[in-house]
Amino acid sequence: MLNSGSISLIDSMGDDLDIVNAAKVSFAASQSIMDDNGIGLIGFLMKNKHATPFEHVVFKFHVKCPIFVAREWFRHRWSSFNEMSMRYHVPENIDFYVPEDDAVRQQVGKPGHYTFTQIEDASEIAFVQEKMQDVYELAESAYSEMLELGIAKELARSVLPVGQYTEFIWTVNLRSLLNFISLRSHITAQEEIREYAIAVEDLIRGHVPITLQFFDETGREQI
Amino acid sequence: MLNSGSISLIDSMGDDLDIVNAAKVSFAASQSIMDDNGIGLIGFLMKNKHATPFEHVVFKFHVKCPIFVAREWFRHRWSSFNEMSMRYHVPENIDFYVPEDDAVRQQVGKPGHYTFTQIEDASEIAFVQEKMQDVYELAESAYSEMLELGIAKELARSVLPVGQYTEFIWTVNLRSLLNFISLRSHITAQEEIREYAIAVEDLIRGHVPITLQFFDETGREQI
Amino acid sequence: MLNSGSISLIDSMGDDLDIVNAAKVSFAASQSIMDDNGIGLIGFLMKNKHATPFEHVVFKFHVKCPIFVAREWFRHRWSSFNEMSMRYHVPENIDFYVPEDDAVRQQVGKPGHYTFTQIEDASEIAFVQEKMQDVYELAESAYSEMLELGIAKELARSVLPVGQYTEFIWTVNLRSLLNFISLRSHITAQEEIREYAIAVEDLIRGHVPITLQFFDETGREQI
Amino acid sequence: MLNSGSISLIDSMGDDLDIVNAAKVSFAASQSIMDDNGIGLIGFLMKNKHATPFEHVVFKFHVKCPIFVAREWFRHRWSSFNEMSMRYHVPENIDFYVPEDDAVRQQVGKPGHYTFTQIEDASEIAFVQEKMQDVYELAESAYSEMLELGIAKELARSVLPVGQYTEFIWTVNLRSLLNFISLRSHITAQEEIREYAIAVEDLIRGHVPITLQFFDETGREQI
Repeated sequence: MLNSGSISLIDSMGDDLDIVNAAKVSFAASQSIMDDNGIGLIGFLMKNKHATPFEHVVFKFHVKCPIFVAREWFRHRWSSFNEMSMRYHVPENIDFYVPEDDAVRQQVGKPGHYTFTQIEDASEIAFVQEKMQDVYELAESAYSEMLELGIAKELARSVLPVGQYTEFIWTVNLRSLLNFISLRSHITAQEEIREYAIAVEDLIRGHVPITLQFFDETGREQI
Repeated sequence: MLNSGSISLIDSMGDDLDIVNAAKVSFAASQSIMDDNGIGLIGFLMKNKHATPFEHVVFKFHVKCPIFVAREWFRHRWSSFNEMSMRYHVPENIDFYVPEDDAVRQQVGKPGHYTFTQIEDASEIAFVQEKMQDVYELAESAYSEMLELGIAKELARSVLPVGQYTEFIWTVNLRSLLNFISLRSHITAQEEIREYAIAVEDLIRGHVPITLQFFDETGREQI
Repeated sequence: MLNSGSISLIDSMGDDLDIVNAAKVSFAASQSIMDDNGIGLIGFLMKNKHATPFEHVVFKFHVKCPIFVAREWFRHRWSSFNEMSMRYHVPENIDFYVPEDDAVRQQVGKPGHYTFTQIEDASEIAFVQEKMQDVYELAESAYSEMLELGIAKELARSVLPVGQYTEFIWTVNLRSLLNFISLRSHITAQEEIREYAIAVEDLIRGHVPITLQFFDETGREQI
Repeated sequence: MLNSGSISLIDSMGDDLDIVNAAKVSFAASQSIMDDNGIGLIGFLMKNKHATPFEHVVFKFHVKCPIFVAREWFRHRWSSFNEMSMRYHVPENIDFYVPEDDAVRQQVGKPGHYTFTQIEDASEIAFVQEKMQDVYELAESAYSEMLELGIAKELARSVLPVGQYTEFIWTVNLRSLLNFISLRSHITAQEEIREYAIAVEDLIRGHVPITLQFFDETGREQI
């Protein structure tokens, strides 16, 4: 993910069948294998935004991403997070986000209606990447010098840019996760978080293929 | 549980080690087996109410309990519930709560400081149990007669007492679950929900024995 | 509301302008009076489901409704509730829900696709109302007799039907409230809670007229 | 607050009396003026951690603080936030956090048991402040140069340090707010957020003086 990021699915609970059975408790019923009725029921739930049965499937991820991506991620409140703490921890190597050539982009239009255009000029791309590197290097050396002086980590970190990679563990139920995917894989989301949202979707597909199929068919809306 | 209730743990994600690793992501660290440091860390988290690492362990239960118990249960908002619906479903047999002899009790004292005393007189116990049965029987027959007339289930149910058993699926993370246990196994909780809270605790003990040990040692407080 | 219910708006914080200003903090901006740009912004937020600005307007209600209505109400988790407790309190008069003549209805069709038809036959209507009254009366007298024996309130209440009126205070932000209205005023919601949802909407209209106008225009969907 | 920060209470709903009345709905009761019984009831609620009545009092703040402070703040999930967006907005002046002389501190001890010691040496203090300024200046000029090239704001911001001031609107109920104060005014919290937590407490004191008195008397614990 990006130049130094990653995402992995480290644990999960439940699959499509559990959604069916959460819904069927309405009728004090359950089934032990998926069948056409179960598939139809998931479609019905998704289409009518009966969202609670999707809350009984849970996923846990390990994520490494830039702070500016993490800041958007942590706005999702029906989620559990534990994150690397720069109050307690000094990473051995501090990684920073530098966009690949094709991610160096211009922004055109008004807020809410931006379009983004790739920069074509190789020297402009290099200029941007070098500017970023320059700031990151100065920030990292200033940070190190302050630490050498014994300055509190929590204070010294002030100079580290939001392009710094952080890492965290994220536990989330499928309902909240679909909302994350809906918002963060959307064309209006920032490209850097979109890559993660698309990866999240791929990582869970094997567990909830029927749910994701209906999610697509009904417009990938929040439920 | 009670005269017709039940609770079972039907799925779970994670154990004590996952709590340790959620906490250790603060230091970008992890470990693959539990050890004394891990045990000590869980104790530290519990004692200092660093609660978020406990959110990454999740349990799913099937519960059958009286409606008046379910109503207290559903007040726990950091939870996911799907419940049998009396708008959609007519149970083949409707079960109602009748207290065992030793649960027929008097209430003494002021709100917030009640004490409960078991009724000793066998005829008084029988009186209470029979009164309850009488109401339940009339309610059930009135309900059936209304259904025979084609009256909407959602309307006919109005007569069914809160002693009726309902059933639901409950998914909850360990932090929220410990709060449930703290409040609902407490001496001031109603006896009928206390039985369930104690059963919940027993059902998860095999998954998070270290957490529960420190939960006890630190006073079974909310975190 | 219904035969013995009520709902009143007892306090609130904010109005349409606060939604505009919550959104405009994105640009470190604000405005002191509503204008066409503000109206347009609310429309944009609603249409694009940018929901967080609606969370800064808050309402507080006092509600008296049947328990079966309250049970649906309390499923809305981004809400704060305090309710009359039958563990602590014995109401002087216990009120129960009996449907007006035109609310006595039949249910036709399959779950998820019910249609409801008013009962025409006056004797059938009376039969239903009397059946309900019979159960309520027996329940209330059994409850009283148990209390006279000193039986704990929390136990004696087991016989009281879900048609009993309860009362509660509900504090909720506008985003969560719109979701409540979307779901509970919907044609598929139970008629008894629909009446409350419609009343809620009328009670807040003076505070957020622009929001409610766009809520209608965009299909009254959850945001 | 700090060198360029601020916090103001911009709206609120309710006061101590509303807490009393939220609790008294348990008994279908209410009172119109505060009295000794009301005071005693708030004390009882706080002591016994009956927390829900505190949720019916709501506050709205405007906050300007460094990003590293905001990141801790936004971990409080039972809260509503809208924040200045660096995807949409380029501040006219970008402010950065530079600690006052007496906030330049060393960190001693192990994680969870840190103590902080003020730096005495004036040249070391100046060194830290200058190092920070150097990074901030380079970051700001690199940011400006990228913007001049038309680079997307959301991308160019990568270089801006977490010492940058952001601003946001925060709406929160009193229960969640007390948890914020408990955690963030605590001796183990970072000094920079502690200043805000203490300011929050002062800003609400006029609205809920009785609650804050009992909060202090019972150990400023989470409820």
